[in-house]
Amino acid sequence: MTWKRISDAVIRRLPLYLRVLDDVKEKQTSISSQELGDLAGVRPALVRKDLAWFGEFGKQGVGYDVAFLQNELRKILHLNEPIHMALVGVGSLGRALARYHHRRFQEDSLYTIKLVALFDVDPNLVGTTLDGLPIFHTDEMAERVEEMKIQIAMLTVPADNAQETAGALNDAGVQAILNFAPATLELPENVHVASADVTLELQRLAYYIEK
Amino acid sequence: MTWKRISDAVIRRLPLYLRVLDDVKEKQTSISSQELGDLAGVRPALVRKDLAWFGEFGKQGVGYDVAFLQNELRKILHLNEPIHMALVGVGSLGRALARYHHRRFQEDSLYTIKLVALFDVDPNLVGTTLDGLPIFHTDEMAERVEEMKIQIAMLTVPADNAQETAGALNDAGVQAILNFAPATLELPENVHVASADVTLELQRLAYYIEK
Repeated sequence: MTWKRISDAVIRRLPLYLRVLDDVKEKQTSISSQELGDLAGVRPALVRKDLAWFGEFGKQGVGYDVAFLQNELRKILHLNEPIHMALVGVGSLGRALARYHHRRFQEDSLYTIKLVALFDVDPNLVGTTLDGLPIFHTDEMAERVEEMKIQIAMLTVPADNAQETAGALNDAGVQAILNFAPATLELPENVHVASADVTLELQRLAYYIEK
Repeated sequence: MTWKRISDAVIRRLPLYLRVLDDVKEKQTSISSQELGDLAGVRPALVRKDLAWFGEFGKQGVGYDVAFLQNELRKILHLNEPIHMALVGVGSLGRALARYHHRRFQEDSLYTIKLVALFDVDPNLVGTTLDGLPIFHTDEMAERVEEMKIQIAMLTVPADNAQETAGALNDAGVQAILNFAPATLELPENVHVASADVTLELQRLAYYIEK
């Protein structure tokens, strides 16, 4: 797949374009790169360049067909059918994220990332449910990931447990991890890890403050 | 300030280096770019290049002095003294984040981002506190931001309210916003906005899954 060689900076912008298309689809059938760029916060020339990696989607003077481009982006991002997700670490942040994503999947037919299972080590939580989602012990991870076809996970455990838990997710066959723990994970190249480390983002923003 | 011209990609890695230094400072007084890079998940050559933007911190064959580099990075990132932060939108995610950051500031002397105020529009919340933090009405934002010297904010309102609330934060004089709402914000250049949009991160990760 040549797609795999495309820079992550390009891939990062595709969900932004998709969100714009989802937003405008009720009111228009085509969109120019200028409008798409303005709404996504990306320069129009970069919009055209990004999309050109995947084919000739636009027509000179007409722009992009909204429904067609929406569908193509969904296929490229594997968002054209449900992806099963787990969340590991049912603390306060984990609970808030679980509720949000569970509700979002139920209410928004365009949101195809489906939270199917939660994991924790706390005996008071294991065996219970949260908004109908089962909470399993992390010891059952390998079994449940296979059985429930889980491909992606959100990691909301404390920093000290993050590496070990991420290793277990990898061993279980999870292919992508969104890490909320303030810890750098070392994992094999076949797992894709993204950081949602709020502390790092705040510390970076602090740089830009005029003291 | 020439620092301001340094690429954001460099700035993004500085908090990672700082975290490594904070972690190792009890057990060692110097660190090589190799070790710093390994622990931060960054190539050693890039570590040297990043730090060289700010001065000659390392010594050939000896590496970096941990305490000195830690102190320099704190100054560069404006983390050498407390920065006052607000959180706007006290829903389930907002509550979880507020609790986390409030506790972190209290327990970790190296964590200098201080959450001082929460804002919401819900009359059942306004006037109450969360873990001792006051919840104000968003109408009071300008007044409170000035009075409490708030420079940075986390935005956890629903997507439909994000732009308006971010505009009010900007008008009130907040210089940096970490946006959790699934919405692209349009703001003047003097405000620095970072996205902590979990949905976009998950959709990007979905690309890397082998279907």
